[in-house]
Amino acid sequence: MSRYAPVNFPDVKLEGKFWHERLETVLTRTIPSQHRKLGEYGILDSLKLPNPPPPLRFPRHPNGFTVQVFWDSDVGKWIEAASYALAHRRDADIEANIEAAIDDLEKAQAPDGYLNCWYLGREPDKRWTNLRDNHEFYNAGHLLEGAVAYFRATGRRRFLDVMERYLDHIYARFGTGPGQTRGYDGHEEIELALMKLYYLTGDRKHLDFATYLINERGRQPPHYFDVERDLREGGDSKQRYVFGNYEYSQSHKPVREQDKVVGHAVRAMYLYTAMADLAAELGDPALKRACEVLWNDVMETKMYVTAGLGPSAHNEGFTHDFDLPNQTAYAETCASVALIFWAQRMLHLDLDGKYADILELAMFNGALSGLSRDGEHYFYANPLESDGTPTRWDWHTCPCCTMNVSRLVASVGGYFVSTSPDGVAFHLYGGISTQVDVAGTKVALREVSTYPWNGEIAIHVDPASPATFDLKLRIPGWSNGAKVSVNGQALDVAEAVNGYLTINRQWTNGDVVNLDLPMPPVRLYAHPGVIMDAGRVALKRGPLVYCLEEVDNPGGRVQRLKLPRTSQLRAETRADLFDGVVTLKAEALAINEADWNTLYRTTPPVDERATLTALPYYLWSNRGQGSMVVWVPESQQ
Amino acid sequence: MSRYAPVNFPDVKLEGKFWHERLETVLTRTIPSQHRKLGEYGILDSLKLPNPPPPLRFPRHPNGFTVQVFWDSDVGKWIEAASYALAHRRDADIEANIEAAIDDLEKAQAPDGYLNCWYLGREPDKRWTNLRDNHEFYNAGHLLEGAVAYFRATGRRRFLDVMERYLDHIYARFGTGPGQTRGYDGHEEIELALMKLYYLTGDRKHLDFATYLINERGRQPPHYFDVERDLREGGDSKQRYVFGNYEYSQSHKPVREQDKVVGHAVRAMYLYTAMADLAAELGDPALKRACEVLWNDVMETKMYVTAGLGPSAHNEGFTHDFDLPNQTAYAETCASVALIFWAQRMLHLDLDGKYADILELAMFNGALSGLSRDGEHYFYANPLESDGTPTRWDWHTCPCCTMNVSRLVASVGGYFVSTSPDGVAFHLYGGISTQVDVAGTKVALREVSTYPWNGEIAIHVDPASPATFDLKLRIPGWSNGAKVSVNGQALDVAEAVNGYLTINRQWTNGDVVNLDLPMPPVRLYAHPGVIMDAGRVALKRGPLVYCLEEVDNPGGRVQRLKLPRTSQLRAETRADLFDGVVTLKAEALAINEADWNTLYRTTPPVDERATLTALPYYLWSNRGQGSMVVWVPESQQ
Repeated sequence: MSRYAPVNFPDVKLEGKFWHERLETVLTRTIPSQHRKLGEYGILDSLKLPNPPPPLRFPRHPNGFTVQVFWDSDVGKWIEAASYALAHRRDADIEANIEAAIDDLEKAQAPDGYLNCWYLGREPDKRWTNLRDNHEFYNAGHLLEGAVAYFRATGRRRFLDVMERYLDHIYARFGTGPGQTRGYDGHEEIELALMKLYYLTGDRKHLDFATYLINERGRQPPHYFDVERDLREGGDSKQRYVFGNYEYSQSHKPVREQDKVVGHAVRAMYLYTAMADLAAELGDPALKRACEVLWNDVMETKMYVTAGLGPSAHNEGFTHDFDLPNQTAYAETCASVALIFWAQRMLHLDLDGKYADILELAMFNGALSGLSRDGEHYFYANPLESDGTPTRWDWHTCPCCTMNVSRLVASVGGYFVSTSPDGVAFHLYGGISTQVDVAGTKVALREVSTYPWNGEIAIHVDPASPATFDLKLRIPGWSNGAKVSVNGQALDVAEAVNGYLTINRQWTNGDVVNLDLPMPPVRLYAHPGVIMDAGRVALKRGPLVYCLEEVDNPGGRVQRLKLPRTSQLRAETRADLFDGVVTLKAEALAINEADWNTLYRTTPPVDERATLTALPYYLWSNRGQGSMVVWVPESQQ
Repeated sequence: MSRYAPVNFPDVKLEGKFWHERLETVLTRTIPSQHRKLGEYGILDSLKLPNPPPPLRFPRHPNGFTVQVFWDSDVGKWIEAASYALAHRRDADIEANIEAAIDDLEKAQAPDGYLNCWYLGREPDKRWTNLRDNHEFYNAGHLLEGAVAYFRATGRRRFLDVMERYLDHIYARFGTGPGQTRGYDGHEEIELALMKLYYLTGDRKHLDFATYLINERGRQPPHYFDVERDLREGGDSKQRYVFGNYEYSQSHKPVREQDKVVGHAVRAMYLYTAMADLAAELGDPALKRACEVLWNDVMETKMYVTAGLGPSAHNEGFTHDFDLPNQTAYAETCASVALIFWAQRMLHLDLDGKYADILELAMFNGALSGLSRDGEHYFYANPLESDGTPTRWDWHTCPCCTMNVSRLVASVGGYFVSTSPDGVAFHLYGGISTQVDVAGTKVALREVSTYPWNGEIAIHVDPASPATFDLKLRIPGWSNGAKVSVNGQALDVAEAVNGYLTINRQWTNGDVVNLDLPMPPVRLYAHPGVIMDAGRVALKRGPLVYCLEEVDNPGGRVQRLKLPRTSQLRAETRADLFDGVVTLKAEALAINEADWNTLYRTTPPVDERATLTALPYYLWSNRGQGSMVVWVPESQQ
């Protein structure tokens, strides 16, 4: 089978209401407001070397406001997100703001090419002394992603030139050659960024350095972070790593030997993304195998039903199998965004719907929940249950998630369709149009649907001239009873392989493929190892996970509700809510709180009849504070 | 009604098996092993000023081992616990160890009386600069409690003299007089210690200083901690308190105005203990009223069913109403021990069984769970649910809980009986004997029972000569259908007032009172506001809360078990387990784990019939690692 590659997002027009609305919100509200916040909180000023103005005080942070060692990455990520916006629609203000930041970065760059504003401004003699903790490569990676995106959007090379000079400096210093340092970063990121630069330029030195970083990671003895620590703190210092282990940064063993997903969730996802990129690019079976083993480990024991990752705030990451607490779930927005990156790479290693299923799940749930309806508020952690305490932030001491979700939405079109020389594959649905080159001809594609609210999908295939090629349709893993027809002629969906139904025929102008994905609401149950979910049920319809929110279920905390196993779930289209959503309704039981006047008692609570209303999870916390629950207690009758 | 005062613990012999075993374990194993640990970890060496040997490295602590600012308190608490042991049975080794510590403390004391080993050894010029965070009064308080206990046990004054010199130094420096500093400690403790010294010596200056501290707390503006911070950090420093609020130390407003329990749980309990002491001693109705309001707040919204307090590890304390998560419960052992102190003070302010009920609940559950069966392992946090991860420690970076539980058990006899000039009150049962002076005569009392395993209690009342007095029997709030008779003549238990049945008669040698407390296992339900416990049930028998432990319910995590509402709970005496306990059994349902091979699925789990075995909560984690749950899911049938 020919290898598939994604159609670039600017070439995909989002015409369906769902993503069109999100994209417009991000373009018109999120990107500009994020630039304002970067200014207000001193992040843009931190680039103004050698004498940055003092940062403002951060009102929520108990110790006031300090420059953070990884602020360059926030600038890089904003430029990336903003560049994606420009690719959709040029905007003079945004361009001017990007150019101003690039001005500062260019001026800040040291004569030898080094460019890290924390070190240049604060500790110029301490460069490269603490890769374990201080994010120098991570920052470089995010700046590089910004530079690549800006070049792709505008054709302007200046930022890319700055970054290539910086990379030359890095390549000279780090590596396995004589006199070089065999370092790599505690926070993976640059690896996947280098792959983007390699795809852009075709220059093999970037692929080589990414390969070096992946190969070096976890090699020991000696462990690079120990070598570096001894140099930094003196050989007699035995001060241990703050997290006490190298699992935190996935450097406990060489990556090809890793078989359990460990440590900081975002770091892990960025690493695996680069590993999958390299597995494809190098044709490295050991690397591919490691990716598959790690993928299975996440899927079998470590992922929330929302595709949230990393239960623990302590290490911002993974703990042990089945440890998926709901109320205290960290499930950082960044981790679900990065899972999308990884899933996309895996999908293009093997066109298997299991990867697209997770990509879609994370997109519509664990990642999208991180951005408010108004486009200017965020969740960093995405719990699956709330007693009403958490609310969305308008910013965060560590604003990583804010720009991760904006760059995702601004480039979401890039996840819908892939092409190979002789085929087109549809991964996501939701109303798009694009034009692709397949089998030697231009083919206009238009997918029309109101997905994810409805599973009736029409795909108009209009080749410039008749051509024979594969059209691959993802049949989602969650679906049951899908129907497919071409120009009204039914096909046998049972012939789908690995989640894709391949339609090979000669396509001519006017051909229409219809895909009907029934979307009955379903109940999901969790493995009994997930102790918090025992006796509970999650509600899902199509790709959307649902939750109960107090505003839709007034009368007390939503945790009072129980859903009888025999109760019918009804989908209800609500045109009046958030520009139109589908909610779920069911007859339920609710504990009567009125007869309680003690904390504990021997009399059982009294259940009353109630109607339960569930809302898509990604929309929670957009109408004020209140309790919320994804996993609803299920009663037997 | 005459005021009741507790019979001192050495005058109460613990003859019943339950407490006799715990006491012997503490005397023979806990106290000596704690002394070894204080040595091994450098805590005893930290007293050896001016040049203490370097502390050992603490193997579990990621940053190695550092002297802690509050280590004096651990020494004080160990001396207190060890002195209680001596009061039961003199022991030359223990006495020698106490004397050696007192030698060091006496030598360490500064010529002006100051005595804090952290400051004397490390920052001699920084004394009294940070009462908010650095525990100087707290340390003094615990040393003082040790000195009082040692004097009571042995009659030796030396340590008491050292501490009185230190107090003179403190009294000269702090207070409302001219030139004095109006300080108080961020961690309450000295207040209740001063009350103990006042009860011992009758010297009113100690009562006065305790009163000053209570009155000063939370007074503002200016807030003392702000004044102190400005002096310490310069007037322009606006660095905020690490916890960002004064609720953490209950200093957000004057104590008489406080009506919600907030902040660090142990601090709060120590404060309220002293407030209740002072309310009684001063006859201060506003202070008493504040104690009652705070008591109700805890009882109605903030206490675990085990009498654990403080759900959050972040502030080691309280959060918002009904926030009582089970798996992440902090519920520090110290907090339940301190709740016992507070409850005892409240009980002697008003002889009301509701206070004794909580005293008993905390004693048998939230406090006792902190000490292992072998007497040498501990829980600092006492979660109500476990996936098998937590285990008992043999020591802790902050060993506060270890000596709190040993000093409690070594003095537990002091909680059983109180006397007034014309009465005797029994609060707890479990097999004790004592002799008291009541109504002008000596009365030998012997309470015979196998409580808490069985509620059949006989009390032998043998006055030296016939005498008329009240004998008050606590009828526990948890009991139903209690029966009382005197010499075989039944009394009407319905005449009990505030949880105590008063028997006023002429008592003569050979009188026997029988109290029969039926102990059927019961189910407890939590207020629906406790979202984690919705649809769940806790099992209790008599004063003991039960839990399911994996070792008694093999076949997977105990969270797989569900208890049908209609299922009968059976008490089962198990002579083979921990020297004899009563377990609970019931027919239950268990999710079959064998048919699961995915993390989530749409097929409901299959329930199978199973038998559930529950063990008293305080005994959990004494037979290796495994899952545990207190709040068991309840199914309808």
